[in-house]
Amino acid sequence: MCNTHDHSHTARTVLTVEQDILQRNNLLAERNRGYFEAKRIQVINLMSSPGSGKTTLLEVTIRRLQDRFPIYVIEGDQQTSIDADRIALLSVPVFQVNTGAGCHLEAGMVNHAVKHLEPSEGSLLFIENVGNLICPALFDLGETHKVVIVNTTEGEDKPLKYPHIFREADVCIINKIDLLPFLAINLQTLRENVLRVNPRLQIFELSATRGDGMGEWCNWLKLKLRT
Amino acid sequence: MCNTHDHSHTARTVLTVEQDILQRNNLLAERNRGYFEAKRIQVINLMSSPGSGKTTLLEVTIRRLQDRFPIYVIEGDQQTSIDADRIALLSVPVFQVNTGAGCHLEAGMVNHAVKHLEPSEGSLLFIENVGNLICPALFDLGETHKVVIVNTTEGEDKPLKYPHIFREADVCIINKIDLLPFLAINLQTLRENVLRVNPRLQIFELSATRGDGMGEWCNWLKLKLRT
Repeated sequence: MCNTHDHSHTARTVLTVEQDILQRNNLLAERNRGYFEAKRIQVINLMSSPGSGKTTLLEVTIRRLQDRFPIYVIEGDQQTSIDADRIALLSVPVFQVNTGAGCHLEAGMVNHAVKHLEPSEGSLLFIENVGNLICPALFDLGETHKVVIVNTTEGEDKPLKYPHIFREADVCIINKIDLLPFLAINLQTLRENVLRVNPRLQIFELSATRGDGMGEWCNWLKLKLRT
Repeated sequence: MCNTHDHSHTARTVLTVEQDILQRNNLLAERNRGYFEAKRIQVINLMSSPGSGKTTLLEVTIRRLQDRFPIYVIEGDQQTSIDADRIALLSVPVFQVNTGAGCHLEAGMVNHAVKHLEPSEGSLLFIENVGNLICPALFDLGETHKVVIVNTTEGEDKPLKYPHIFREADVCIINKIDLLPFLAINLQTLRENVLRVNPRLQIFELSATRGDGMGEWCNWLKLKLRT
């Protein structure tokens, strides 16, 4: 078996442009951060593979918390407004960003969405990023917390194979624990792999569809909104 | 609910560089294609979200076909050689590409890997792309067939939300059908969504872990190697 890191032929050109893009993104992210600080808005950026249950988690979380705090949602997807339509059914203000060929949300898109939503003082703003375990890690959105979601169905090794996003996050949700009896996965190994990549990660294990563990996750959010 | 496509602020700079990169990639992809044609190598590019079971599918497929054809594998991941190590256990020549922060394989990486592997005349070469349902769609590798894998656990709407990769593929594998009894997903709706995005897609429904449907998939591969 051989091993290579050879992708230098396009690397130099890309690097310069990437730095420009990231630098521009970082400036706008700081502007977002200032806006959120000014209005004491807690902003939670949810990142995961496609189909990890971000929208279902959001729906269940909103139902549990919407009587206590004003909640707003920014939805990111390549195409369709399927997720935003689901959230809108809960009577929560939601803004859909379609990225087309793009693989992540950027700070500018969030800034634009926030100006439309005008979240109120002391509110909770969820950003559901584009389903992708790689690219969203690179783009600061000015959020208060980055949450990475990984599923029991995805195997134990995802944190090791896609470490960047786990390093950037401060919370990791292990979702779909209701399927554990039907899978060969070792939950303890997954937990260890998550912490091996980032020992500071706060882990919540839950099933959004069945409700297990939702209390702890919602209590954490409540605590954040009180402080 | 509002809707925006506003990501034009960085679009122009990115577009030019992206065209350069894609053009360079396309040239190298054609070189790969010529190489594969010259040696009648069937090249299957497997693309999916992280954790959709690409490596398990590969393991089971290799065990069923390795007595009939020489098989080679190129593994793509951000980090680790976990997947290549699994394949190497089957005594199949395998080459691991680590993309670092990169979110997809490029034709140049495949070219480099092929020069190391030196696949024999009439062989079967699998490329396991980086786990990502977005970026790999943009990069032609010179492969004979693009196969997109989607899981029953990922919900019915993935083809609609990530249409590019489904449009680029000519085969769609719906994996993990053994979990259907425990999920709320409607398989018929998923199938319809796949075909709505790309009516030419050949669909295989299977469970790599339990073996259901593996016969049809392997027969299709055998047919490709005979023609």
